[in-house]
Amino acid sequence: MRSSTVKKATNPPPDKEPGYLSLPVEGQAVDREPHSYERWLITKLLRMTGSPPIAFKLWNNDVVAPETGYPKYTLSVKDPRALFSLVTNPNLAFGDLYSAGRLDVDNNLPDLMAELYRSIHRAREDWPKWLEALWRTPPPRSSSVEDARDNIHHHYDLGNRFYQLWLDRAEMQYTCAYYERPDLTLEQAQLAKLEHVCRKLRLKPGQTVIEAGCGWGGLARYMARHYGVRVQAYNISREQVAYARAEARRQGLEHRIEYIDDDYRNLSGQCDAFVSIGMLEHVGKENYPQLAELIRRSLKPNGLALLHSIGRNRPMLMNTWIEKRIFPGAYPPSLSEFLSICESGNFSVLDVENLRLHYAQTLKHWLERFEQHRDDVTAMYDEHFTRAWRLYLAGSIAAFEVGSLQLFQVLFTRADNHQLPQSRCDIYQSAAAPAND
Amino acid sequence: MRSSTVKKATNPPPDKEPGYLSLPVEGQAVDREPHSYERWLITKLLRMTGSPPIAFKLWNNDVVAPETGYPKYTLSVKDPRALFSLVTNPNLAFGDLYSAGRLDVDNNLPDLMAELYRSIHRAREDWPKWLEALWRTPPPRSSSVEDARDNIHHHYDLGNRFYQLWLDRAEMQYTCAYYERPDLTLEQAQLAKLEHVCRKLRLKPGQTVIEAGCGWGGLARYMARHYGVRVQAYNISREQVAYARAEARRQGLEHRIEYIDDDYRNLSGQCDAFVSIGMLEHVGKENYPQLAELIRRSLKPNGLALLHSIGRNRPMLMNTWIEKRIFPGAYPPSLSEFLSICESGNFSVLDVENLRLHYAQTLKHWLERFEQHRDDVTAMYDEHFTRAWRLYLAGSIAAFEVGSLQLFQVLFTRADNHQLPQSRCDIYQSAAAPAND
Repeated sequence: MRSSTVKKATNPPPDKEPGYLSLPVEGQAVDREPHSYERWLITKLLRMTGSPPIAFKLWNNDVVAPETGYPKYTLSVKDPRALFSLVTNPNLAFGDLYSAGRLDVDNNLPDLMAELYRSIHRAREDWPKWLEALWRTPPPRSSSVEDARDNIHHHYDLGNRFYQLWLDRAEMQYTCAYYERPDLTLEQAQLAKLEHVCRKLRLKPGQTVIEAGCGWGGLARYMARHYGVRVQAYNISREQVAYARAEARRQGLEHRIEYIDDDYRNLSGQCDAFVSIGMLEHVGKENYPQLAELIRRSLKPNGLALLHSIGRNRPMLMNTWIEKRIFPGAYPPSLSEFLSICESGNFSVLDVENLRLHYAQTLKHWLERFEQHRDDVTAMYDEHFTRAWRLYLAGSIAAFEVGSLQLFQVLFTRADNHQLPQSRCDIYQSAAAPAND
Repeated sequence: MRSSTVKKATNPPPDKEPGYLSLPVEGQAVDREPHSYERWLITKLLRMTGSPPIAFKLWNNDVVAPETGYPKYTLSVKDPRALFSLVTNPNLAFGDLYSAGRLDVDNNLPDLMAELYRSIHRAREDWPKWLEALWRTPPPRSSSVEDARDNIHHHYDLGNRFYQLWLDRAEMQYTCAYYERPDLTLEQAQLAKLEHVCRKLRLKPGQTVIEAGCGWGGLARYMARHYGVRVQAYNISREQVAYARAEARRQGLEHRIEYIDDDYRNLSGQCDAFVSIGMLEHVGKENYPQLAELIRRSLKPNGLALLHSIGRNRPMLMNTWIEKRIFPGAYPPSLSEFLSICESGNFSVLDVENLRLHYAQTLKHWLERFEQHRDDVTAMYDEHFTRAWRLYLAGSIAAFEVGSLQLFQVLFTRADNHQLPQSRCDIYQSAAAPAND
């Protein structure tokens, strides 16, 4: 997860598929009473989603409460067509309708989402086949070299100014931070993440690092600044590369860092450390053997590699709305899918760490700042965009909190590397976070 | 890897399969010159195994040197039938012939084995199909509840007195130790392993632990003594359970530990921590879903589970000789096979650590003590047994050194456990090993 969008309507990105990024049709103003079958549909919907403590408020202010228990949240449905979309295709419609303001929530959005995820997760074990088919999740779109640029452009070229509003002010990290202490600020936790990654890679001055998917280049600069290494960093987001280069120049680090505006699949050269933070989600399972071969080709005999990615406890498709509207091509792998990279490249896995709750905390910090700047965001884009982004951040908090998403850092090396770290003690000899911002 | 044997010839264990544990036929005394096709066979054998720097010394003291390079080791073949066995079925014959004294090595056995493994590993990529077929590795025997007792009896009921000769004097650990510093003694490193496991499980006084496959009960006693927990520990090796109970009584810990002489598959009850050190190798891939279900059933909502096992970088069958003569039913899983336990049980993996070189070091310490006591071992069993065990320990050192075997510790929990450790810092706050033995 490095950057995202429901694209500004006035400046649409290349449209590769019919309906891709198309905004939902507007609802029509309605003054009629709800039909009895519409109330029946809501009761059915609540039952099928495991009877979450949610009441529905309809367009005429009628309320349909759950059959049992006291509702903790109210979901407002603004028109009958919104209700129909929600029932027939909830995976996609929930996000689209919320973004369009045709669905609204009266209370804490992340908590409502977590409640919904938990409830649906329990309920879906009893779903009949027809419901599984109706509410199915389609597979992610292609991440081929040609399509990857569009996919990434869609999310990461939204404008650096937008991300600067709510990412950390230290290194513009759009990936999971590392809260070695729960009270860290976002800035401290992001710097701690960079430090934690460098320590796992056991970097030494003068070494060479290849980074695949470098975002705004913060890790490369941190490595060059604090560990005296040379970094080749690849990214296909033009806006990010431009920012990264300017920042490296500003910090006098341009002699140690080469930011390369190219697909990671075109990388060449040899390195002591290979690192990729938050790119694997975009790579696509079908491209894992190629990634393995690439790392194999570039890693020196005793080199270490670290991949950091959102993942799953079991193989599962990405949420439809996120994949369609926010992250085209995204697929968070299960850990065994993730490790197929290591098996196919004949690597030896040294260390796996799961930072799931750290991502929930990171996202909370992001959402908090996002809400503080919501008027700026709406001025830059529009209300639809702001609402889509709020939902995406809130839904992601919920997904990491309930355990539907995980965050794995995997450290590995060639099978014939025998110069291994004695233990992991060295990673923990001092705090990874700086004392002050 | 908890205990092993090439069974004393005078007291054979239950013989389930024809040829199971049968000793190789004796060689006949030979005074004839080698035939030219026998020299040709050796040249062929050397080429097929990747031209390792090994010379062959034949029964009449003739030497066949490798085609290129200077030989670092000499392998003595004592009779023509030994040579024929070695060429047609090297996986099994190497061990059998060495044990019977019909094959001998003039130099450092672990180094020769490592050289051989490395060489064969490279060479086998070019093997023709017929050679793959001729030298194939058969699958492991069954680990069903009925067969498991025989398998385990075969290895672990060799006699506690035998293992006491060369295992650590602290807690009789027959699994990989943890050398957080390279200069630790075997005793320190084994205690450090026990401490490391307890820290990963975040044990608290009064908690309940279930241990599947407890060896001589050292971990259970360590946990009860240092962490004030109650332990139910399962083992189907009667000799080990008898030792474990006596030792717990001697240490006044019997009120906190129940050693249960039963298959882990019959365990019941609920626990805060589930742990199994060095048993998974014996479980058999086909029984992983059952193990997952069992852990799922016994682990409390916020409980942690740790499995520690020999593993592989990729799926691969166990060495034939080890599986047939030393560890019936043994299969070290690849990490993705290992993690299928977590996926099938809907667990969330928190931490994976690979301790490969720690096992090489452990085995070196074991072999050193074994050699010091080799006359005692031969007096207890016979020369054949002593040689088989030397080869097994030396070959295992080699396998961990070259990276053909790995050692994984995997920590996991229920997917809906949200009380996760903040980080791994707490594991490393002080040394795990005691300062003195």
